[in-house]
Amino acid sequence: MDFKILKKSKRSKARLGILKTSHGEIETPSFVPVATQAVVKTLTSEEAKAAGCQILISNTFHLHLKPGEKLVKAGGSIHKFMNWDRPLMTDSGGFQVFSLGFGKDLGIGKILKTKGLEKVLLGQQPQNIKITDNGVWFRSPVNGEKLFIGPKESIKIQEALGADIIFAFDECTPPNANYEYTKKSLEKTHRWATECLKNKKSQQALFGIVQGGKFKDLRIESAKFIANLPFDGFGIGGEFGDSKNLMIKMIDWVIKELSENKPRHLLGIGHPEDILKIIKSGIDTFDCVMPTHYARHGVAFTEKGRLNMNKSAFLKDKNPLDKKCGCDVCQNYSRNYITHLLKAKEITALRLLTFHNLYFFNSLVEKIREKIKRGEI
Amino acid sequence: MDFKILKKSKRSKARLGILKTSHGEIETPSFVPVATQAVVKTLTSEEAKAAGCQILISNTFHLHLKPGEKLVKAGGSIHKFMNWDRPLMTDSGGFQVFSLGFGKDLGIGKILKTKGLEKVLLGQQPQNIKITDNGVWFRSPVNGEKLFIGPKESIKIQEALGADIIFAFDECTPPNANYEYTKKSLEKTHRWATECLKNKKSQQALFGIVQGGKFKDLRIESAKFIANLPFDGFGIGGEFGDSKNLMIKMIDWVIKELSENKPRHLLGIGHPEDILKIIKSGIDTFDCVMPTHYARHGVAFTEKGRLNMNKSAFLKDKNPLDKKCGCDVCQNYSRNYITHLLKAKEITALRLLTFHNLYFFNSLVEKIREKIKRGEI
Repeated sequence: MDFKILKKSKRSKARLGILKTSHGEIETPSFVPVATQAVVKTLTSEEAKAAGCQILISNTFHLHLKPGEKLVKAGGSIHKFMNWDRPLMTDSGGFQVFSLGFGKDLGIGKILKTKGLEKVLLGQQPQNIKITDNGVWFRSPVNGEKLFIGPKESIKIQEALGADIIFAFDECTPPNANYEYTKKSLEKTHRWATECLKNKKSQQALFGIVQGGKFKDLRIESAKFIANLPFDGFGIGGEFGDSKNLMIKMIDWVIKELSENKPRHLLGIGHPEDILKIIKSGIDTFDCVMPTHYARHGVAFTEKGRLNMNKSAFLKDKNPLDKKCGCDVCQNYSRNYITHLLKAKEITALRLLTFHNLYFFNSLVEKIREKIKRGEI
Repeated sequence: MDFKILKKSKRSKARLGILKTSHGEIETPSFVPVATQAVVKTLTSEEAKAAGCQILISNTFHLHLKPGEKLVKAGGSIHKFMNWDRPLMTDSGGFQVFSLGFGKDLGIGKILKTKGLEKVLLGQQPQNIKITDNGVWFRSPVNGEKLFIGPKESIKIQEALGADIIFAFDECTPPNANYEYTKKSLEKTHRWATECLKNKKSQQALFGIVQGGKFKDLRIESAKFIANLPFDGFGIGGEFGDSKNLMIKMIDWVIKELSENKPRHLLGIGHPEDILKIIKSGIDTFDCVMPTHYARHGVAFTEKGRLNMNKSAFLKDKNPLDKKCGCDVCQNYSRNYITHLLKAKEITALRLLTFHNLYFFNSLVEKIREKIKRGEI
């Protein structure tokens, strides 16, 4: 992997770059759509390309469970398996494994529960999973089998999957975690980072992950530690609930400590309203399920905000989803048809919305790149 | 509409033709894929084209309920609504309305129940619907509203939808119906056929439907009656359960009576194993949900028969669905990936299978056209 910074903004920390992999280049900043199970939900790989996706991120945890990395490798790497010849990332599986623990106890990702909070504050073990020094024991949500993933296992799985960029195995702490829990967790995450580097045998680019929760000193400590290791790039992880200001502050603490010439990926964040902010904070790539997830719930992203296409009023609306959008869906289909398909429970609706939303997100970031180029951001 | 017969087989009753509509021509014999709710389930209209579909058939009953023909017309006809610029048919809604009656009582389309049979044999009214001389009262499955469709209403709805070819409103009798019931029903179907012709104001081509159940004299009577009316073409209707031999016999009884120079459409039938037979019997077009319906249950049609892609064994199979198939899915994806997507409950699997199956059916009929051309059939 090679990362070249073409321009640094004078107005912000934004930068324009080219990330080269053996499956081609991507222009940064770039949005990284999510292909959890080796597919952008509802689309084919050809459509993901047509929607402007430069790079995708797949999920180590999900692919380990189904169909298993051995079967993917037998098919000749994940690129061949899913017919995607552009760059590809896999996450480490850490977030998903820990989501089975405190994430489930506290309802993270859905509604935050305060009920399991005492446990976190007391530094206790979460339900459902068992965290050890070497990794995490958990039960397969597919068949109940007892499974273990740690840094060694994560790297082995990611090497078998064969993405261009892989991530170190880390613990993503819940937003409610206190200082003590976070500090202890961070020690583990750092030890695991070293383990990941030691265990990697492939030519894949490995990104280290900065954690540290909401605590400035821990974040800075983590950034310094990870920056000092021979990683090819950085992931910035963490669950912030709805505290967007804290997220931007946290990026600021961290970015200063990271080597300027390596790419920085923000994990799991990218609401349209945040994209400009995170890019201005110096983020090069970021992944988020938002455009695809919302599409499957009938929501379209437009220049004028979100549209809930489930609303009957759209049955009489002959406009495209977004008048200013150049995507195939907006050229060929009107709101009335898409709302009809949603009400008729037709799968095609979910596809049309997924395609449009991805195109919208990719275009949004493309416009930001143009603005950085012109010195406007 | 204009129908031109290019060649008549000397070996069978098969014929090669061109059916011209204001939305272009189709080569016959042709398979007519089903777009019940103004969409080929899981696909876009562009994909239906790419899968080789020349013409589609949409459903008057479904579109009347949702979104209603007025909204479709407000969008500028069904072609514009669904972005399909090739020829299009709508059925009359008769089959669906009657399916709510005896179809439901007897489980037609699913498992045949003998329980409601006495009613049919006694010539009684089915549950759920009320058949009158002018049409059928039924309750909307969408919102329970009391609705009425007869020949007049069906034509009005089909005119608003604006397909190129529309069908007369008929009663499709259940396979268990006795002679008495079928004879009575046929009188109604014939009266309604005349009503449909009287009520049509549009330039759309109107096809009359031949019924008569499994009774030779009634079938011949029906064919003679319908052939004597100024219809633009013929539909041959009826529910045969699993009696395929009876179906071919029935086509033979009917075809002799129909004007040679008008197109003949077989309603709702087209298993791959029947296609050659019905074409050899003189059928020009036929619609069937089979390729799309089976795709959504994980079944692929291939040169070597049906494959149940839900089977785990395919996770290790790197072959395309069908080695001899030229479709995009077979060029780009392997069986292992499609089975992975099915097991992971990914919608994309249903699309890939739908596309392939439609391509397979369309190619099958294309090959038969070639054989008629070469005098081999």
